[in-house]
Amino acid sequence: MNNNYYCIIMAGGIGRRFWPYSRKALPKQFLDFFGTGVTLLQQTYDRYKQIISPDNIYITTHKDYKNIVLELLPHFNEEQLIIEEERRNTAPSIAYASYFLKKKNPNATIVVAPSDHLILKTDDFNKAILKGLDFASRHDKLITLGIKPSRPETGYGYIQIEEDKKEEDFYKVKTFIEKPAKEFAEIFIQSDEFYWNSGIFIWHVDSILNAFHTIMADICPRVECDSPDFASCPNISIDYSIMEKADNVYVQLCNFGWSDLGTWDALYDASPKDINQNVIINSNTLLSECKNNIILIPEGQLAVIQGLEGYLIAARDNALLICKKNDQNAIRKFVNDVEMKFGEKYS
Amino acid sequence: MNNNYYCIIMAGGIGRRFWPYSRKALPKQFLDFFGTGVTLLQQTYDRYKQIISPDNIYITTHKDYKNIVLELLPHFNEEQLIIEEERRNTAPSIAYASYFLKKKNPNATIVVAPSDHLILKTDDFNKAILKGLDFASRHDKLITLGIKPSRPETGYGYIQIEEDKKEEDFYKVKTFIEKPAKEFAEIFIQSDEFYWNSGIFIWHVDSILNAFHTIMADICPRVECDSPDFASCPNISIDYSIMEKADNVYVQLCNFGWSDLGTWDALYDASPKDINQNVIINSNTLLSECKNNIILIPEGQLAVIQGLEGYLIAARDNALLICKKNDQNAIRKFVNDVEMKFGEKYS
Repeated sequence: MNNNYYCIIMAGGIGRRFWPYSRKALPKQFLDFFGTGVTLLQQTYDRYKQIISPDNIYITTHKDYKNIVLELLPHFNEEQLIIEEERRNTAPSIAYASYFLKKKNPNATIVVAPSDHLILKTDDFNKAILKGLDFASRHDKLITLGIKPSRPETGYGYIQIEEDKKEEDFYKVKTFIEKPAKEFAEIFIQSDEFYWNSGIFIWHVDSILNAFHTIMADICPRVECDSPDFASCPNISIDYSIMEKADNVYVQLCNFGWSDLGTWDALYDASPKDINQNVIINSNTLLSECKNNIILIPEGQLAVIQGLEGYLIAARDNALLICKKNDQNAIRKFVNDVEMKFGEKYS
Repeated sequence: MNNNYYCIIMAGGIGRRFWPYSRKALPKQFLDFFGTGVTLLQQTYDRYKQIISPDNIYITTHKDYKNIVLELLPHFNEEQLIIEEERRNTAPSIAYASYFLKKKNPNATIVVAPSDHLILKTDDFNKAILKGLDFASRHDKLITLGIKPSRPETGYGYIQIEEDKKEEDFYKVKTFIEKPAKEFAEIFIQSDEFYWNSGIFIWHVDSILNAFHTIMADICPRVECDSPDFASCPNISIDYSIMEKADNVYVQLCNFGWSDLGTWDALYDASPKDINQNVIINSNTLLSECKNNIILIPEGQLAVIQGLEGYLIAARDNALLICKKNDQNAIRKFVNDVEMKFGEKYS
C-alpha cells in the first residue's frame, strides 16, 4: 500500500432523514441497516482497509459519538479519531482534518468519504479509489466521484461535466445542480453529461488546503491549530463552500453499485424485496394486502399490517412513523414538527 | 343496601380482540382504556359498590390474574376472589360462583357482570340493576339486560323479544341471534323487537342453579364442591349453554350508555374524537391527512402518521398492529395467525 494515501471517514452526521429508525443518540452510520450484523461505519472502515493502510485511516466525528466509534471499531487507534466539539457540517470538519493530516504527512493524498453509504461492487470501488488517489497525487485538482445515474432521483445532487475538458479519464465540472425537479432529473438521465454527486472526494492535502485558503480564508485560522474553534465556524458543507466555487474540480466517472442511502426511497431501492415488493428490514412481520412498503421495527418486535401500499413504517424506542415513503418533503417536515412540538424528547 | 343482593364480576378474559394493546399477560379489563387513570375493572367495581354492599361483591378470575386484581383493588377482600385454575369460559365459571354464593346466602339474588364494559349513564345503570334485582328476587326467571341498539352493529349478539309476553316491564325472550350480517342488523334496528345482548345477567341463585341442574347436569358435580375441577368442564359460554336453552329467560330493556368495548369499532364509537374524527387514546401524535382512525400507543411514545383513513394503529410492548379498523374478521385472523406463526411470544 502507498504510504502517502490517506482516508478520512466522516462519521459525525445525526441521521435526521431516517428518523425515527435513526436517532440523534445513535444515528444511521452506527446502525446495522440491512441486518447483516455490520454497521454502515464498520462496512465503510473495512472497505477502505483493503486499499489504505489502517495507520492512514482517520475518522472525524462529534464528541458525543466518540465512544460509539471506539466500541464499533475495537482495533481502531484512538489517536486517529478527530473529534469535533461542535457540529459544523463538512467544510470546517474537512478543513481541520486536512490541516491535521498535513502535519502527519505533507505529501498526503486523501480520500474523504461519508461513513453511511452503501457500496455493492467492492472490487470496482477499490480500483476507482486507487485510480483517483493516483491522479490526485499527480495533479492539483479536487476530484469528486460522479456516479452514472440509474433513475431520475430528485433527492440527489447532480454534476454536469464538460465533455471536452478532460485530463486522462477525469472531466472538468461544468456545474453542480442541487436536488432537481423531476422533469429535470428525467432529462439528466437521458444525457451523458450528468452524474450523481457521491460526496466522496479525492485530493492532495495541498490542493484542498489551498482551496480553503483561497475561498474560505476566514475559517483557516480557526481550524489550523491544535484546539480548533468549531463553534466560531460557519455551518456550511464542503459542496457549497468549496466544490461549487473552486475552478479545479474534476469528476471521476464511477459505477460501483453506490447508494448514499440518503432517503427512504434510496434504502428501498437498495434492499431486497418480498414477493409483493415490500422491503422488510430486521423485522418480524405478518402482512396482508401490503405492497411496496418499507418496514423497519426494532429486532424481536412484530408488526402486523393490513392494506398499506407505498408506505414507510419505522419504529424505534419511543417513536413510530407511518407515512408515504416517497414523500420526502413531508418526512422532513414531520421531523421538524416533532422537534418544534416535543423538543428533544423524540429526536 | 339489600343484604341479599350480590354481584359477580367476571374478570378472567384474555382480551384477544384488542391485541396487541390488550395482552394475555395484562388483558383489557386491567387496562386504563381511556387514559382516565382508572382501569375497566376498577370502574366496574366502583360502579357496583354504589348499589351493592362491598361484602357482597365477588370477582371471578383466572389464577394468573389474582395478583393483578388484588393490586388494582387494594381494599378488596381476597376471600371474595373466586379463582379458576383453568380457563373454561363463562358457564363453568358462573356455575361454580353460584354454588359458592348459595353457601354464603341461600337467598342471594345476583347480578353477573363482565369487568370490561363501558357504562356512561351511571344513575340510569344503578336504577336498572336495582330494578332487575328486585324483579329476580321475586320471580324464578333468568334476566338478561337488553340494550336498545343505536347502530347496525354486526359484532354484537341480539335478542328478539316477544312483545306480548311480558311480566311487569320484563319481556320473554323469543330468540337469540349471534353476530348478524349487516343486512339483518339494519332490519333489527328499524324494529322494536331487537336488543343488544349486554352479557349482564340477573337472577336468584336458585334460578340459575336450577337451570344448570336441568340443562347442564353433567358439570354440576364438577363445580359444586370446594375444589372445582375446571379442567374437566367444557369450554362453553353461559349464553350458548343456558340462556339460549332455558325457557324462563326474560329481557330487561335498558338504556344506560352501554358499550361492551368488544371491538375496535365499539371502542372508536365510545371515544372522543379530534376534528378529523380520529380517536387518539393515551398517545402523543402528529397526524397529517388522517381521518377516522383509532390510535393507541404506549404512554410517552409518539406516533407520526400520514395519509391513513379508517385504520387502527395499536402498539404495546413487542407488537404493532396497523389494519382497517372495521374489518373484525381480518383482525381475528391476524391474532390467530400470530399465535400459529410465533407461538406465545407476541400473545
